[in-house]
Formats: sequence, C-alpha cells, structure tokens
Amino acid sequence: MRVLILGADGYLGWPTAMRFSALGHDVHTVDNYLRRSMHAVNGSDSLTPIKRFDERLAAWGEISRREMTHTEGDLTDYSVVERVFREFEPEAIVHYAEQPSAPYSMASRTNAVDTQVNNVVGTLNVLFAMRDLAPDAHLVKLGTMGEYGTPNIDIEEGYLEVTRNGRSDRLPFPKLPGSLYHCSKVHDSTNIHFASRIWGLRATDLNQGVVYGVDTPETVLDERLATRFDYDEVFGTALNRFCVQAVIGHPLTVYGEGGQTRGYLNIRDTLRCIELAVVNPADEGEFRVFNQFTEQFSIQDLAELVQQAGADVGLDVSIEPTTNPRVEAEQHYYNAKHTKLLDLGLEPHLLTREVVESMLRAIRRHRTRVIVEAVPPRTRWRASQAQPA
Amino acid sequence: MRVLILGADGYLGWPTAMRFSALGHDVHTVDNYLRRSMHAVNGSDSLTPIKRFDERLAAWGEISRREMTHTEGDLTDYSVVERVFREFEPEAIVHYAEQPSAPYSMASRTNAVDTQVNNVVGTLNVLFAMRDLAPDAHLVKLGTMGEYGTPNIDIEEGYLEVTRNGRSDRLPFPKLPGSLYHCSKVHDSTNIHFASRIWGLRATDLNQGVVYGVDTPETVLDERLATRFDYDEVFGTALNRFCVQAVIGHPLTVYGEGGQTRGYLNIRDTLRCIELAVVNPADEGEFRVFNQFTEQFSIQDLAELVQQAGADVGLDVSIEPTTNPRVEAEQHYYNAKHTKLLDLGLEPHLLTREVVESMLRAIRRHRTRVIVEAVPPRTRWRASQAQPA
Repeated sequence: MRVLILGADGYLGWPTAMRFSALGHDVHTVDNYLRRSMHAVNGSDSLTPIKRFDERLAAWGEISRREMTHTEGDLTDYSVVERVFREFEPEAIVHYAEQPSAPYSMASRTNAVDTQVNNVVGTLNVLFAMRDLAPDAHLVKLGTMGEYGTPNIDIEEGYLEVTRNGRSDRLPFPKLPGSLYHCSKVHDSTNIHFASRIWGLRATDLNQGVVYGVDTPETVLDERLATRFDYDEVFGTALNRFCVQAVIGHPLTVYGEGGQTRGYLNIRDTLRCIELAVVNPADEGEFRVFNQFTEQFSIQDLAELVQQAGADVGLDVSIEPTTNPRVEAEQHYYNAKHTKLLDLGLEPHLLTREVVESMLRAIRRHRTRVIVEAVPPRTRWRASQAQPA
Repeated sequence: MRVLILGADGYLGWPTAMRFSALGHDVHTVDNYLRRSMHAVNGSDSLTPIKRFDERLAAWGEISRREMTHTEGDLTDYSVVERVFREFEPEAIVHYAEQPSAPYSMASRTNAVDTQVNNVVGTLNVLFAMRDLAPDAHLVKLGTMGEYGTPNIDIEEGYLEVTRNGRSDRLPFPKLPGSLYHCSKVHDSTNIHFASRIWGLRATDLNQGVVYGVDTPETVLDERLATRFDYDEVFGTALNRFCVQAVIGHPLTVYGEGGQTRGYLNIRDTLRCIELAVVNPADEGEFRVFNQFTEQFSIQDLAELVQQAGADVGLDVSIEPTTNPRVEAEQHYYNAKHTKLLDLGLEPHLLTREVVESMLRAIRRHRTRVIVEAVPPRTRWRASQAQPA
C-alpha cells in the first residue's frame, strides 16, 4: 500500500515510517522540521541524539535495503500538499504533522494562534487534497484523549448514543479540551467529521493517550535510527519526564494532588494501532474514532511506580508535590472505553516495573545530555499565575 | 454601560450599534468593511443603498444627538484589538465580526481556510484581550443554530444532561455543523467555553436562527441610517432572498424537497435579544448558550407564505424546486428549545403574512437595484457537483 506519513521526523512519525517500510509498504514522508526549530528556540533538545532527516533516511536504506522518499515542506502551504498527493497518490495518510504541545499553546497569545492556525489549516489542506486528488484514500489522524477532558460519565469512543423523549441518535461525544492545543484537535475532529459526511471521505480519528517508551523494533537496529525523546516541560509527557527526572536526581514533579488520571500506552502499541487502522480502513463516508491507549493511571500512581523501579536500578527517587501550573481537576472520575483497537487485534504491552526499569537504563545511557533547566514546569494556564508573587 | 460592537458595519451590527446608543449606552464600533469588499469582488451589493460608515456615524450623530466612536481595523491584527480594549475599556463586547457565509466557505479551499482563520483568530484575539485587559467584561458572541445541524433528538440550549450507568454530567451539546463556515462557529464555541472554564471569563454564545426583515426602530428614522440587505446567493438568507425573488419575478428557489426546517427571527427581535443578553450578563466563569430564534419553519412553508403575501400585494409568485446545492437532510426531525431569552423578557415579533407584505413593499422601493445574476445558487457543497455535467 502507498502510505504517506505526515510529520515523519517526530517522536512517533519516524518509527511509524520505518514500521510501514519494514512491513513492505511504499512510504513517502513529509516534515518541515518544526519540532527541531522549536527546540532550538526553547533551549531544549531530544534526550537521544538524533540524526538529520536525510541521514536517517540513508541509514534506513542501508540497514533495511528499503527506500523511503521524502518531501521537506509545510502542510499549511497547499502547493506542497498538492504536489505530494499528485506525485505519490497515497492510499493511506497517517497525519501526525501538528504542533503537539499543550504548554506551548498556553504560553502566549501568539503561541495559541500559531498552534490553532498551523493545526487547523494543515488538516484542512489535507482534506481538500483528499477530496480533489485522492477521494478513496483513508486518513488516519492523530487526535488526543485530551479532547474529552474529564467528564463525570464514561468516555465512549467518539460517539454518544442519546435517547430522550422517545427519540434517539448517535452524536459526537461532547468535548471538554484542556488547553488551546487540545482545542485545536477538537477543531480538527469537527472538520474531518464534516468532510466525511459531506464529501464521503474515509477517516479514522485516533484519540491517543500519553505515549511512553523509546525503543521500537526498528529504532533498536542502529543508533542512527533512534527516535527523539523529549523530557522538557514543553514537549515532554508525563512518564517520559518522570523517568528522566529519576535518572538525574530531580524530584518527580507531581502537579497538585496527583489524582489526574489519563490513558497511557507503550510506543510499540502506538505503531501497532496505526498499522491496524491502516490495514482495516474506514468505509466511504465513515468518520471512525478509536480511543488509543491500553491502561489508565493517575499521576501519583506513575510517580510511585517510577520510584519503585528506580530503587531496583539503584536510584533514590523522591516525589515532590508541585503547584499545578495547569487548570484541571486533580481528583475526578475517569473511565474511558478502549475496545475497538483490541477488537482489531491489538495485544497491549502493559506498563510493568520491568518496563520502567528498561526505560531508566536507556535514559541513563544519555544522562549527560539532559538540559536540567528545561525540566521544571514554567508555563502556567492562568495569566495571573505567570506573574511572580 | 460601555458597549463595544465588533462588526458594526454589518446587517445586524449597524442597527445594534444604534440601538445601544439610543438606549443611552456608550458605544464604540469596530469594522474592517470586509463585507463591502467581498461584495465588490462577488459582483453583488446590498439591496438597500447604504452610506459609507463615516457618513452613517455622522447621520446618527445629527439625528440622535448621540455620538458613537469608531475604529477601522481587523480583529485578526492584535494591535487593533489591544488598542481598542485599552482605550475604550469595554464592559460588554458584542461580537458579530466574522465571515458569515456558508456558501462562501464552501466555494474553494482558500475560502474555507480564510473563513476559519479569520473567525477563529479574531475570536482568540478578543479572548486574550479580555483575559489581559478586561477580565470582568462580558462577551456576547454571535453563533448560529447551524452549529447543531439536524440531530434526531430535541436540540437543547448549549448543554446536554447525560445520565448513564448511574452517573451524570452536563456536557456541551453535540454539534453537526453543515458547512466549513458553521464549523468555524463550532471552533469559536469550543475556544470561548475553554476561556470561560480556565480564565473565568463571562460569555454568552447566541446560537442565532435565520434573521429576516429590514427595518428597526432606528433604521427607519432616516434613509442614511438604513442597514444593508443581502439577497445574493452568497450572503442572502432564506426569507430575505425569497422576498427579493418574489419582487423581481424570479421563481422562489426551494432547494430539494423543501423540508429543511430551521429557526427564524425578526431583525427587531435580534436587537432585543442582544440587549437582554448584555443587560443580564453571564456570571464569572460562565459560558451561557441561548438559542436565539422565535419560530421554526420549513423552507417550503416559507415559500408558500411568500407566495400568499405576494398575491396580496399583486405579485404572481411561483415556487421552483431547485437541485439542492448543499448536502443536507431535506426531511428531518427538528425541535429546538428556545426559552431562555423568553424567560429574560423577549416578546417575539412573529412572522405573519402582514410582515411579509411589509417586507415586499420595502423591497419593491429598491427593485431597480437588484442584480439578477447574483440571485441563483451557484456554490455547491460537493466538488463533483461543481463540474458542469
């Protein structure tokens, strides 16, 4: 199958591209290296040393004997999108190419505007290219579980069956996004659902949980194939950040009461979920939503797990309750359904103490690369919090 | 009260500005005259002759002996928004300043992108200005009933009480917008709701039905105070378009089966609703949603009403089923709640045959100004429809 990977230079994009190539698909990649330039501005960097994209591609060709083609470009420029669609004629489009940081989107007005314009316009351009140039292709779009927020009812997979006054309908599940980045993902979902209804496009919206881990079957083949691993407050996510904090002797930054509960999954399961979505495409006109995670944990649960695993590998890990820079419920009900990917064949890699130990060992190999100043939280959700007291 | 009117040169913005001024409020207006320039590009124009904005302001000052101040500018330029907020210090912000046409948004990719960027960025800028410069002000934002689409259950006012498995929550009512313009209004609602939850802003989202009519208590005082009246396929709305079609002897363009049912209201009731929302502000952190219309009609109902009223004033009106250029249900359940504005004191001006007759007489005074080429529908929701057979 011809699989187009948008955002192929990212934490998940790069391993995904190699996975599809390894599986024998024709892979074309697109990226504008936005994440690299944002890190440069931010004074932060990937924990793992990563190669330039052209070097990655060359290394993959050398090791796998398979070639991936590439376009450097920005999806908000329609001439780029149009050219890629005309030349590559994708059958599946895996779309990771968005500004992915909630703290980034909350740090200033310009960041908020840039995030929403970048994400919404890039996705609109993909939808129009599909309509006009690849109407039978299947869009596999990365959304986030953060679109739902923390409602006081069970979170279903994308839709809510509502019955009232003797009538019923299956409607989009209500969303309570937790940042202006998360709002941008809700906007995307609204636009993609519309394009499916009106133009008959095939789409799968993957509301992904928090991904952890650093190794995939392909990244471990050669150090030049490593994927990025972010631990800074802007791009790092909870468990990855805790593991880096444990290795460098920084207290684990549990925000507020620590009862914030979310869905999590291993990076290896992300790749399998994307593969399952691609090989089992949505029907014509179908907007399918899968909740893509394997287990739920609270932040306090995770911190304690890292503390225990740290002890196993000789690290003395402390947990430090930190003033919550976000505005979010710190104790709440959370029960999100996630059966659709299991029904397609996902076999989860669960989060064990051994998995955390292996992450800690992998991180320890790069501990001298950690930029300590990038670790503590700085971005506050309320402007008034941003002022020093 | 200091009332800021964003989009004050529009069909509703201009009468709203005069109304608040007449009621004794301090009024500051903002517009970039986008609608006038879009009409110039489109080869269409207001049925009513309208004055330049500075002439309107001068005429209002002369007739009412009240002064309104004005800023020419674009809300997507934050320096404009910031200056207006610093200098005027609004207590209420009535926000009409968006690209309001569904067909415009569906005509091309660039139109879709322009619509979403214009509307989303303009509103984000207003929210940040409120957060930083007017945190106690009240935003009264014009949304649309078209955000809801046509679900098979009763449409509530903004929220849905959901109970399941013994748990319950009050969540945003699910949205099924019918065009990329309508999607942009859903995006705005998502962002404004977020800003209320996180920053404690006060906001009222008015999901307005289709407005008809041309006269308000102020526009009738002097012909220089007339508001615009659009009848073209891009900016004209159903009943206003039918009345112009009746006057010029064009068959009424009922799309498809004509069972499309929507909420409608008289322009005089729009002004009263805005006033009621402003003088009864939302609480701190409250995102309040009102469904702003007074009666439901199907398109076929309206066409028949115009036919009957036309006969009363000597017009021979025919109804012509037209291939539907949109993608929408043509027969569907529709029952939308609209009690919250009635509870605040709205006394509806209902749509009678006499009201339509008065519209027909008002339109007849300007019949030589009608640009006939701008009347028939051209913009199709599906790209394949856009190709001549």
